Amino acid sequence: MVKSRKNKKCVVLLSGGIDSCVSCAIAKKEGYRIWALTFDYGQRHRKEIEHAKKIAKFFKIKEHLILKIDLRKIGGSALTSDSIKVPKKRSLKEITKKIPPTYVPARNTIFLSFALSLAEKISAESIFIGANCIDFSGYPDCRPQYFKVFEELIKVGTKKGVEGYPIKIRTPLINLTKAEIIKKGIELKAPLELTWSCYEGKRFACGECDACKLRLKGFKEAGFKDPIKYAKS
Amino acid sequence: MVKSRKNKKCVVLLSGGIDSCVSCAIAKKEGYRIWALTFDYGQRHRKEIEHAKKIAKFFKIKEHLILKIDLRKIGGSALTSDSIKVPKKRSLKEITKKIPPTYVPARNTIFLSFALSLAEKISAESIFIGANCIDFSGYPDCRPQYFKVFEELIKVGTKKGVEGYPIKIRTPLINLTKAEIIKKGIELKAPLELTWSCYEGKRFACGECDACKLRLKGFKEAGFKDPIKYAKS
Repeated sequence: MVKSRKNKKCVVLLSGGIDSCVSCAIAKKEGYRIWALTFDYGQRHRKEIEHAKKIAKFFKIKEHLILKIDLRKIGGSALTSDSIKVPKKRSLKEITKKIPPTYVPARNTIFLSFALSLAEKISAESIFIGANCIDFSGYPDCRPQYFKVFEELIKVGTKKGVEGYPIKIRTPLINLTKAEIIKKGIELKAPLELTWSCYEGKRFACGECDACKLRLKGFKEAGFKDPIKYAKS
Repeated sequence: MVKSRKNKKCVVLLSGGIDSCVSCAIAKKEGYRIWALTFDYGQRHRKEIEHAKKIAKFFKIKEHLILKIDLRKIGGSALTSDSIKVPKKRSLKEITKKIPPTYVPARNTIFLSFALSLAEKISAESIFIGANCIDFSGYPDCRPQYFKVFEELIKVGTKKGVEGYPIKIRTPLINLTKAEIIKKGIELKAPLELTWSCYEGKRFACGECDACKLRLKGFKEAGFKDPIKYAKS
């Protein structure tokens, strides 16, 4: 049985992808009052932001904050700089082998720091982030040891933390495979049809970038058909 | 003798105040090639940003990035919300007793996370931040234990970190009193006349807010006259 968190507040990082959608469904199921936080960070396309809005609407989240931060001024990633290419048609083995050019320097640290600011402002108990490190792109800031240290940072670096009430980082998907995340989402009736994973922002998902490949593999292993449309399907 | 860091890069967080100005002078003295980073975060006035620009110009810093992030959308501090008042006319004892309403939730975590992103992008060796915890306002994210944990976060959460070349956080002023920082600045010929500390953004510094009081006390103890003008002087 899930412990009810009724009237407890949480901040959910909502990107528009499957992971954050399922993580939001888990927070909802636990009875949290949710503040959703989405970043307009200069990513290649705004499509994922539109999908995040649809997901927030589905979950009837009243407080959905979309923060504009210009990571393009920093760059350094295929997702925030036009001069770095998004890899395509890589094998799944290649995808998980080393940190790819889609790595955005310190992205989760930036995202979590804003989530932390908001969480402290509204006196939230937890921050939910849909990170996972099984079927992932090798980003260092998606691993359990990273989140563990971030919780230490909250303890020493925030007012609530030093007062003895540190905000928790919740990573309910951290050790799940993409297939298990999808199964969890379906079990919780999360609107996976409203999610967007593709690094390109075209009408249909490309099916060839790392994000599409990991997603398609996940649905296949879970034994479900991906409800979204692909350019070549 | 100071070890020369010629050709080594660093990111300096430059707010426009005394501490970041002196911390920048130290980085300069050590021979770093400096990227200055200033935040336009919705603070009460833009005066400190103008002063940061003047300081960067003084130090002949070619790369001065001014990043806009809207902390007003989050609020929760007297510095980012008009509904919370900046305390005035408090005694120095009151100032250092507890965390004041000018505390911006997770501000240094947000600032350092952007600095980290930039540092990783340009392959910088260090990030300089002028934080100190002697004559300070009691902010938890200005204490040595906070920066120590942030360095741990860099080790586990960035590409450079996991590759064995973590970016360092340099806090050269951390254990100095305001008077010692001022003396250090004068010794290094830092342009203290170009700095701005007052929480208000009026023509002259108010002399009554926590920031002005700590600054005036520092100059007095250092035995120098503050070169900036005050409303009541």
